Amino acid sequence: MPHETQRAQTHDLLRKRGLARALFANAASVKWLTGFNPPLQTGPNIFLGGPPLVWYENGAWNLVLFDGQISNAGDFDAAPNCQIVAYEGYAIDHPLRGAAQLRQTLRRVIGESTNGKIGIELRDAPADIALALDESARVELVAVDDWLAPLRRIKTPEELRKMRDNFRLTDIGHAAARAAVKPGAREIQVWNAARAAIEQAARQSVPMGNDCVVGYRQNNIGGAPLDYEIRAGDSVIVDLSTLAHGYWSDSCATYYAGEPSAKQRALHATLERALAFGLDLLKPGAVAREIDAQMREFMRRAGYAVYPHHTGHSLGVTGHEDPRLVPYNTMTLQENMVIMLEPGIYFSGETSGRLEDAALITRDGAEILTHHDKALP
Amino acid sequence: MPHETQRAQTHDLLRKRGLARALFANAASVKWLTGFNPPLQTGPNIFLGGPPLVWYENGAWNLVLFDGQISNAGDFDAAPNCQIVAYEGYAIDHPLRGAAQLRQTLRRVIGESTNGKIGIELRDAPADIALALDESARVELVAVDDWLAPLRRIKTPEELRKMRDNFRLTDIGHAAARAAVKPGAREIQVWNAARAAIEQAARQSVPMGNDCVVGYRQNNIGGAPLDYEIRAGDSVIVDLSTLAHGYWSDSCATYYAGEPSAKQRALHATLERALAFGLDLLKPGAVAREIDAQMREFMRRAGYAVYPHHTGHSLGVTGHEDPRLVPYNTMTLQENMVIMLEPGIYFSGETSGRLEDAALITRDGAEILTHHDKALP
Repeated sequence: MPHETQRAQTHDLLRKRGLARALFANAASVKWLTGFNPPLQTGPNIFLGGPPLVWYENGAWNLVLFDGQISNAGDFDAAPNCQIVAYEGYAIDHPLRGAAQLRQTLRRVIGESTNGKIGIELRDAPADIALALDESARVELVAVDDWLAPLRRIKTPEELRKMRDNFRLTDIGHAAARAAVKPGAREIQVWNAARAAIEQAARQSVPMGNDCVVGYRQNNIGGAPLDYEIRAGDSVIVDLSTLAHGYWSDSCATYYAGEPSAKQRALHATLERALAFGLDLLKPGAVAREIDAQMREFMRRAGYAVYPHHTGHSLGVTGHEDPRLVPYNTMTLQENMVIMLEPGIYFSGETSGRLEDAALITRDGAEILTHHDKALP
Repeated sequence: MPHETQRAQTHDLLRKRGLARALFANAASVKWLTGFNPPLQTGPNIFLGGPPLVWYENGAWNLVLFDGQISNAGDFDAAPNCQIVAYEGYAIDHPLRGAAQLRQTLRRVIGESTNGKIGIELRDAPADIALALDESARVELVAVDDWLAPLRRIKTPEELRKMRDNFRLTDIGHAAARAAVKPGAREIQVWNAARAAIEQAARQSVPMGNDCVVGYRQNNIGGAPLDYEIRAGDSVIVDLSTLAHGYWSDSCATYYAGEPSAKQRALHATLERALAFGLDLLKPGAVAREIDAQMREFMRRAGYAVYPHHTGHSLGVTGHEDPRLVPYNTMTLQENMVIMLEPGIYFSGETSGRLEDAALITRDGAEILTHHDKALP
């Protein structure tokens, strides 16, 4: 059953906090609770009446969707304790009324006699829906924003299957990007090459994010691919995130057009050592900010300016989650977390490099999930 | 100044309805009011504290964004009466607090002494923000959802420049798709070919939606491209929408792998005649449902089952807007509307076709905005 563990954990949490009912409206929460993964590359569907919502009541779950989303739900299947409740989105014989249909449907699902506490993700819930619930003197709304985030940190075997399959896609994309980086090519062409390889492997269109930047850009840390031409001797950072089965991957490598310079070789070798050093630090009990501090110290000792970004982060139904490997964070790593590590070196307007791997925290260390070729040519 | 007309019209509307303050939270409204066009291919930015919001007060406009969005704002520029108010999204020296930052920033922008009526897009506003406003006994919230939709129907010269540039992209994509349809190719490869051509022309990644379906699919009306192999004699519907400068385009053609059959030739010729017939009906004063009825009658007389979808629709900051050309709609066309026409013929699991053009309604007729080759091979 898809995402049964997630719902069981949430059921326990809500019960412990004295909530028999809750409305989840955050996109990450809805995805994590149900496994439902709506298409997102063109923004919210135009026939939507509002975001997908999950209504929880005493152990039973309802996923409220517009009818046109059901066929687009991909690998989502209903589970015995999680039913899909559909409302009409598209029609040609009367004006579009998805918004009204969603609200009527939700009222029916929630029931008229509701009283007592209702948990609600207030930052993402449509205001009119919350105001209507709040109107009743017998209802007390309890904000549950961020309640699921701690549960999301430890990945289930089902999630890890999805994520491994997704990291396979980024590996494929990297191989195509590496081959596409050559003098005369444009950043956007490198990006298209990676995308075509990924989508052919996935047999469908795949949301793809992050960076493809040539070293001579002023901001050569990150950014979407543009029309910059890659010249002989240029470095190109390719940082690929893909979304598959509702989960994000992440991965970075640096490629070179032709022969890397001595400076680039030294920089790249340092990044390889930094990444290996960092991966060795990943194990249950390791403290996020200590890993971060050791990585920054490694860069300083190697004689480079320390990167201005995080050392790493977790990910899942979103692309950047706790534990973040950053200076303040006292969280400890635990088995079945997935952690990204991404040291970088940047000479603005000249050349830059970053290497990034994903690691699954195991019982006594870490297993690398990314297998893209990050070696110098 | 970008989108000055849109803000002036909205200012007039709000004043007429007695509203001196309003909060816009709908993505289409924010884009239309400001010209700000956030990236959307990978979903909402992970460092966002909530959707971009526009606060209006007595003719002054504030666009509330997180700081990481400013550099991603593309062709957006601030205008004298519309200032950008940024809050912190990403940080490494303390926990991410975009949500709290957004709410503090908004409170500061709105001011503490607010009383009286506040217009608010209640379906899209974050519930906690609306509840906080509603808490004050001196504030009356007035739902303004959909108020801007009628204003959005008539395109300004600035919008038409953006849209023309975008239709140019879909033309380029269609030429590449036409060349890519051949026996042995996969739907997703046709899609990638169109995308690569579009993105190279646009010099950046471009959100791209809709359909790429081979005729032998059961649902051969529409759907995202998959791994279906195109065989000799197959038809492929390619319906391309792209987003550029915040505006959607749309366009459809049907291509054939090798020589079309007699049935496909007859079908295609009928669609060409239907499209030409429909384009002739487009002029100021024409009634949406009458155009729809005449197009359906045309299909019946030609001996084909009438397509189960709309005959056409408008578009703009979203991909499907009123006036919709559908059986119930009594709206009349007006100068400077942009109208899509898209007759189709579908033999499920066998072959199908659809042709679609965009037309700008002119003083006494229509100007076709799409110039992709829709002819039989």
